[in-house]
Amino acid sequence: MKQISGGVCAAKGFTASGVHCGIRKNKTKKDLALIYSEKKAAAASVYTTNLVKGAPITVTKNNIADGYAQAVICNSGNANTCNANGIEIAEKMCDLLSEKLGVDAKDVIVASTGVIGQPLDITPIANGIPALVEGLSASSDDAATAIMTTDTVEKCVSYSFEIGGKECRIGGIAKGSGMIHPNMATMLVFVTTDAAVSPAMLQKALSEDVKSSFNMVSVDGDTSTNDMVSVLANGMAGNEEITCEGADFDEFCKALNAVTTHLCRMIAGDGEGATKLLECIVTGAASKETAVTVSKSVICSSLFKAAMFGADANWGRVLCAIGYSGADVDVTKIDVAFKSVAGEIVVCVDGSGVEFSEEKAKEILTEKEIQVLINLKSGDSDATAWGCDLTYDYVKINGDYRT
Amino acid sequence: MKQISGGVCAAKGFTASGVHCGIRKNKTKKDLALIYSEKKAAAASVYTTNLVKGAPITVTKNNIADGYAQAVICNSGNANTCNANGIEIAEKMCDLLSEKLGVDAKDVIVASTGVIGQPLDITPIANGIPALVEGLSASSDDAATAIMTTDTVEKCVSYSFEIGGKECRIGGIAKGSGMIHPNMATMLVFVTTDAAVSPAMLQKALSEDVKSSFNMVSVDGDTSTNDMVSVLANGMAGNEEITCEGADFDEFCKALNAVTTHLCRMIAGDGEGATKLLECIVTGAASKETAVTVSKSVICSSLFKAAMFGADANWGRVLCAIGYSGADVDVTKIDVAFKSVAGEIVVCVDGSGVEFSEEKAKEILTEKEIQVLINLKSGDSDATAWGCDLTYDYVKINGDYRT
Repeated sequence: MKQISGGVCAAKGFTASGVHCGIRKNKTKKDLALIYSEKKAAAASVYTTNLVKGAPITVTKNNIADGYAQAVICNSGNANTCNANGIEIAEKMCDLLSEKLGVDAKDVIVASTGVIGQPLDITPIANGIPALVEGLSASSDDAATAIMTTDTVEKCVSYSFEIGGKECRIGGIAKGSGMIHPNMATMLVFVTTDAAVSPAMLQKALSEDVKSSFNMVSVDGDTSTNDMVSVLANGMAGNEEITCEGADFDEFCKALNAVTTHLCRMIAGDGEGATKLLECIVTGAASKETAVTVSKSVICSSLFKAAMFGADANWGRVLCAIGYSGADVDVTKIDVAFKSVAGEIVVCVDGSGVEFSEEKAKEILTEKEIQVLINLKSGDSDATAWGCDLTYDYVKINGDYRT
Repeated sequence: MKQISGGVCAAKGFTASGVHCGIRKNKTKKDLALIYSEKKAAAASVYTTNLVKGAPITVTKNNIADGYAQAVICNSGNANTCNANGIEIAEKMCDLLSEKLGVDAKDVIVASTGVIGQPLDITPIANGIPALVEGLSASSDDAATAIMTTDTVEKCVSYSFEIGGKECRIGGIAKGSGMIHPNMATMLVFVTTDAAVSPAMLQKALSEDVKSSFNMVSVDGDTSTNDMVSVLANGMAGNEEITCEGADFDEFCKALNAVTTHLCRMIAGDGEGATKLLECIVTGAASKETAVTVSKSVICSSLFKAAMFGADANWGRVLCAIGYSGADVDVTKIDVAFKSVAGEIVVCVDGSGVEFSEEKAKEILTEKEIQVLINLKSGDSDATAWGCDLTYDYVKINGDYRT
């Protein structure tokens, strides 16, 4: 497996585009994205577990119930959520795209992201679709930027891998960056592959993958109403279709996980206002569940996040977050260390503090990517969670988001 | 029942003091507090549910196992938590106070608050106890300021009430202000009363009270390792001792709740970096549990808190937080309004947005105390939760807390 360029257009038969259609006032910010597969593709999605769901989620669920799709349309600037006519508008987006693109409206995945509770006007979208379709190209960039909200960097990755002697490609784009605390689903992520995978196996691969990828990311503890990850597999790589578990399926899952994990790190590192990517690695847990609970509790702690912003080795906050996580742990066994490219420093052994160089700790914590290593010394399970620091800019961005 | 002055010294027979003993480097900040009852008092406490517990909690639990106590000693600047010799130090604090004050060491409630995981030196405490005992007076102020950490205002309240024709008094002091997300227990709160209440009924009253008072407060979602509320009732008001449920017990619970609710609002309003007190009032819930879950989810949302800091009527974040709360609600029935002394404005009806004046909303949300009113229109249960906005100063305070 190796990283390649191309994003969602790396896989054979996929093109993409993005335009400014006018949902956003700022004309330099694209707000409508399209991903298209020249061949109908197996489709799988996971969605937010928030009871308040964006209208596009209902429409997408319905459209891919048969396991197939051919295009993705996604706008930013408005979440089309908590609007009385939301479903109608989301369906209209599919219809308008269908007419212009010549695909069945039922083969369209539709998504929206932005402010909740403001009616979404169909006019700019209707006006933008012709240019959107005409703009389809082998570059992922316009689509990747068009789905961004408060993201500061475009999130895009792709890999090539081999199944049964055939070279396959898989790639994805994502948007973060606030209201990020996925639960059984995630923020907006679109993944394309030319591997041939049956809809059932594609869904199985995705549902399993998100448990250790997107569900382990938190920026602010708020689970969005519009979270969605969709994968399209159009089979144009020519491998024998994967229809059951086995070596081919495992190979595909590994490639999928390379894409999703990469995007997770990008989403966490570009969390709203973030200056640092935080990675919490828990080992020695008595069960997978304990490892997951502990790592997410630490990565979600406002106090820990603020300490990391200040490069303050305040490990007591790590212990505190483990203690209230709800996991059944022996607090007298816990070891904690901080690590970055500048080195590693042990700060807590057996649940009590040890002497360490504050100077060295500062040096380690001043880096852009920080690992907090927690060994529970009670078993063999582990888990990794991703998050970011809590900064002035998070407050600034969210103090007046709607204007 | 009427509000009176005096704090923890309002009730007959209680005196208090506070000194700077040297745990903190800043000599102008008191760091050691004492509350003393001239008569042994019935004692009740609730404690943090964090598995990582401060050593003083273990010692206090043990000391009041017989239902009685006579003094409270509390230091700030160091939590005496995650230290190998923590229990020994906490017991030493009781012993030293016992010698000087002439009370049984087993009748001392001990508490600590501050940084986790730094050894607590007994020397400054030993040196400070003589002045602490000599300083006992009818003023609550020195004790109230000595337990403060990042608090900006002293938290103190007292009421008089009547039981069986006898005038009784009850008062309390509290410290907030970060790591505040009590769960079955709370931050540090000490309440004194001269009402005569048996230890069992005192514990019953307190355990019931915290469900609707301190457990409904959140500043940052972090449940402290050192949360504790203690009540001392010395019986010097001369009422017939309350030993069972009935009118007298109800009267006492009402007075207790007046004190605790007042302190809750003070703690939330003085949350770290806070500029506003947020009160989330949920009505029309199908069950008490639903009302509690929904109100706490909203008050804990970082996005909602940041929007309130910016006086931005971003009600979509309220709906979002209700949706991911885990409560079983019909999202198509939810009404939301914002209220303050500047007026009230309805922003969402039946789960969808309604038109409203942004100007009026801004005016309402610019006030210091904001209510978000949520009607689930599905039953008769209600709940109130208290929190504060998320501000630049929260990040600043917690980015470098230890230095």
